[in-house]
Amino acid sequence: MKKKIKKVNAAILIIGNEILSGRTQDKNIAFISNWLNTKCGITVNEVRIIPDVEKNIIENIKILSKKFNYVFTTGGIGPTHDDITAQSISKAFKLKYEYHKEAYEILENYYGKKKFNDGRKKMAKMPKGSKLIYNPSSAAPGFITKNVFSLPGVPSILNSMIDNCKKYLVKGLRVHSKTINLYTVESNISKKLGMIQKKFKRNVDIGSYPFFRLGKIGVAIVIRSISISKIRNVNKELIRMAKSKKIEILKI
Amino acid sequence: MKKKIKKVNAAILIIGNEILSGRTQDKNIAFISNWLNTKCGITVNEVRIIPDVEKNIIENIKILSKKFNYVFTTGGIGPTHDDITAQSISKAFKLKYEYHKEAYEILENYYGKKKFNDGRKKMAKMPKGSKLIYNPSSAAPGFITKNVFSLPGVPSILNSMIDNCKKYLVKGLRVHSKTINLYTVESNISKKLGMIQKKFKRNVDIGSYPFFRLGKIGVAIVIRSISISKIRNVNKELIRMAKSKKIEILKI
Repeated sequence: MKKKIKKVNAAILIIGNEILSGRTQDKNIAFISNWLNTKCGITVNEVRIIPDVEKNIIENIKILSKKFNYVFTTGGIGPTHDDITAQSISKAFKLKYEYHKEAYEILENYYGKKKFNDGRKKMAKMPKGSKLIYNPSSAAPGFITKNVFSLPGVPSILNSMIDNCKKYLVKGLRVHSKTINLYTVESNISKKLGMIQKKFKRNVDIGSYPFFRLGKIGVAIVIRSISISKIRNVNKELIRMAKSKKIEILKI
Repeated sequence: MKKKIKKVNAAILIIGNEILSGRTQDKNIAFISNWLNTKCGITVNEVRIIPDVEKNIIENIKILSKKFNYVFTTGGIGPTHDDITAQSISKAFKLKYEYHKEAYEILENYYGKKKFNDGRKKMAKMPKGSKLIYNPSSAAPGFITKNVFSLPGVPSILNSMIDNCKKYLVKGLRVHSKTINLYTVESNISKKLGMIQKKFKRNVDIGSYPFFRLGKIGVAIVIRSISISKIRNVNKELIRMAKSKKIEILKI
């Protein structure tokens, strides 16, 4: 077994005009981020959404692959002219863009020799030396090039593939979280909350998010840490704060 | 009236651990991007999501404000310890972080002198020389510092404020779009689609997005351009392609 290292991070690079233009509501960011944290102990530290433009993809792959342990891209690996992720990553890493033998076989087998047209063949082309991420829903595989994992943009297909990334990832420590919902406004607790965050400043993150529910205003306090005992201690302080300020705690 | 310039672009910077961790599904990107395009003719060219960390905010504000005509930030302008957008932008632009007189008056008036505590006062502090973006839902204003527009993270509040940004923006030409939905698979049309994109390469963008509806697989082709007549011409070619390939067009 590999030794667990403390902090492993990742970036997500969403490639697609449809997300950038607001036409399509992204669903992949939250899914990938949750999966990475809960299944692999990997924290997403940055997300970028960029257009289907080669220059932009190359530039961002270069920057993010240096800055983070892993990069997950979504989108641009289908058969159409606007699918340029594979050739752009090849250029970013100065690798040949060529047919992957196994991917070619998988796709030829899936479509049948007669129906294996140029568009479909394109999905077997990727940066030289890439490893495949198998696709149980629609055959066309994703691929891993150095520390970059390329997945499709369609959420249902991406979701079906993500577990196949797991064996290639070095695991880190999972960030746990606990949420406490208070019927109050942020400005009523901001001072005390800041004091609690200061007291527990090492490796605990306290976030505060207003919400509206059934006509009432509240604040969700989210405690995040790799240490469950630290979360428990912060939670105790928050309950104490709520009681002393006579704030109702919402049970969910 | 200001003369319309051809291309005006923007970036969106989402500041918040809750989005990055996957806890909260972002809704602001699609909303801001749609609003900028339809109401102001401004195209969003890049989105970044970063944590509530001063160093990251400063770095991204510096880069994005140079690279794009406008930057829209969301999140981190409330009263709690994790709200550090205003002071970080002050540092990015080397501006004093101080009380904005009018913002102070608005908030003091809203809460009443007795209830105007430190957390609430904090929301009146911003980079020196900022202009206010009025907030009809919860008083605390957003602010404009150079070409950076800072809005809150709560979608309902952001939505209520965005029209107040309009008068400060130079308008560009709106990108129009038309979608045609075909009951086919991408790889069946990818070659022809590429040829049509090549033919209309100047200022028309053809995107192809698979969908699943009522158990049937289809492809949404989105044509985007500032020229409505070019969109019409591409649309005609797509209908011709569908007919020649006997592909059913989905009427919505």
